[in-house]
Amino acid sequence: MITALLAAALAQATPVPTPLPSDPVAADWVAVPDDEILVFTLANGHGFTLRLAPGYAPAHVANIRALARARWWDTATSVYRVQDNYVAQWGDATEKKPLVPGVADGIAAEYDMAGPTAVARLAKRDPYAEWAGYSADGWPLAGSGTRQWLPHCYSMVGVARDLAPSVGSGAELYTVIGHAPRALDRNIAVVGRVVDGIEWLSSLPRGTGDLGFYATPAERSPIVSARLASDLPAATRPHFQYRATRNPRFTAWIAGRENRTPPFFTVPAGGADICNALPPVRRTPG
Amino acid sequence: MITALLAAALAQATPVPTPLPSDPVAADWVAVPDDEILVFTLANGHGFTLRLAPGYAPAHVANIRALARARWWDTATSVYRVQDNYVAQWGDATEKKPLVPGVADGIAAEYDMAGPTAVARLAKRDPYAEWAGYSADGWPLAGSGTRQWLPHCYSMVGVARDLAPSVGSGAELYTVIGHAPRALDRNIAVVGRVVDGIEWLSSLPRGTGDLGFYATPAERSPIVSARLASDLPAATRPHFQYRATRNPRFTAWIAGRENRTPPFFTVPAGGADICNALPPVRRTPG
Repeated sequence: MITALLAAALAQATPVPTPLPSDPVAADWVAVPDDEILVFTLANGHGFTLRLAPGYAPAHVANIRALARARWWDTATSVYRVQDNYVAQWGDATEKKPLVPGVADGIAAEYDMAGPTAVARLAKRDPYAEWAGYSADGWPLAGSGTRQWLPHCYSMVGVARDLAPSVGSGAELYTVIGHAPRALDRNIAVVGRVVDGIEWLSSLPRGTGDLGFYATPAERSPIVSARLASDLPAATRPHFQYRATRNPRFTAWIAGRENRTPPFFTVPAGGADICNALPPVRRTPG
Repeated sequence: MITALLAAALAQATPVPTPLPSDPVAADWVAVPDDEILVFTLANGHGFTLRLAPGYAPAHVANIRALARARWWDTATSVYRVQDNYVAQWGDATEKKPLVPGVADGIAAEYDMAGPTAVARLAKRDPYAEWAGYSADGWPLAGSGTRQWLPHCYSMVGVARDLAPSVGSGAELYTVIGHAPRALDRNIAVVGRVVDGIEWLSSLPRGTGDLGFYATPAERSPIVSARLASDLPAATRPHFQYRATRNPRFTAWIAGRENRTPPFFTVPAGGADICNALPPVRRTPG
């Protein structure tokens, strides 16, 4: 929509910024704990980083941490499925690789939880829930009745499973690379979000087999390693911050997502869906 | 979410199908007119095909047809912008190439139109409109008051423009390759939908310049040609069909999108957003 010349003009036009009500203050950026950061490195030299959600799927996240500490993903794993407008999925494509002690498929479903604990909400009702909004610790939420859950937005990470009642172990994970497949909400455990490098998953060639699985093993993108930031040397440890949501600046940020402004926009929508207003997460500056 | 072994099992399991209320009958598949089909071929050997929407953006579609007939896209054009979770955009990256006689940037805005003419609607209210549903001729729609418009869903095609009140000519086009940026609705002219080959746009490397523009010309994907199907020899002319929407089978199809069923799904959502329930379009079989 924006033309090349206009983009160049916008990039050059950096007037002294006027503070906006939605501008965060320094204290609005809160450190993500190191043991919530999981770094995947691919053999092609790229990689991607997750923020895990232990508060929402504790048993699955415990499995994922145990698998990372056992270096389970460091051998014979890959991104083996890329389905257009849907998901990129990784792990052991053969499903024959043994898991590690203490990690099993038989854990409880963690599809939603009692609540609600949203501290900020969107103006319009969500098509898949009674409300959508934000947790105090920077997660998108949807909820109905006394239950709440992490919605299947672009970049959110879920646990691959077989037919119900299987809930999956956490060894096979996927992330959304298209329009939010919200019908999966409350049917699959959501365990985190890709906070860096999703473009290396979303731009992979699409698989031509059933459901986007690669037709041949050679098409897969091998995984080299997966490490919790807390297990990396301090000097190479990546740091991320989420934006605090319980303050008037974030409330103004929501309003800005719901009503875009001139000069580019002339008709404000008066609303937004949660996957079009994902709370900001960034690499810690400096 | 679906594991590799399960996918293989699903692919092998082809029992005699029981007819469903949502199964289309032969007459439900309606031919898309040949002059609504526009075939782009890329220098990399791949390509993508649009269905144009003359009923919704007649002036822009007239421009696009004139540009195709003048072979405007056949020289010095490319896919020059790919922004993750947003758009892939193509045309003349320099914006210096003259248009053709009769094609100009000064046409009227075609952002919405009087209506509504939806013949089927989704159960839940749309976060960006009073309702969402389907036209008789196979387009997704959103509407409020007396107005309706084509929503910015994955694969929908819009007309790039500069800051308002610019409306663009149609020479520079984009398609959505991520979560639906519905805030663009009624701010940009939507002129069609990619009905084939979007994976060749959505899997292109992301641009590292501002707004996803490629940083260097060498990164662009050159366009070889753009042809209306009606201008191609009959023997090589591609044919597409949309699914009719004003019948009980399509009503059942909508209900199925809004409430997914076991054995994979155990909690139906009770609703869907229009971009998660795009009406089917297919290449004509045989």
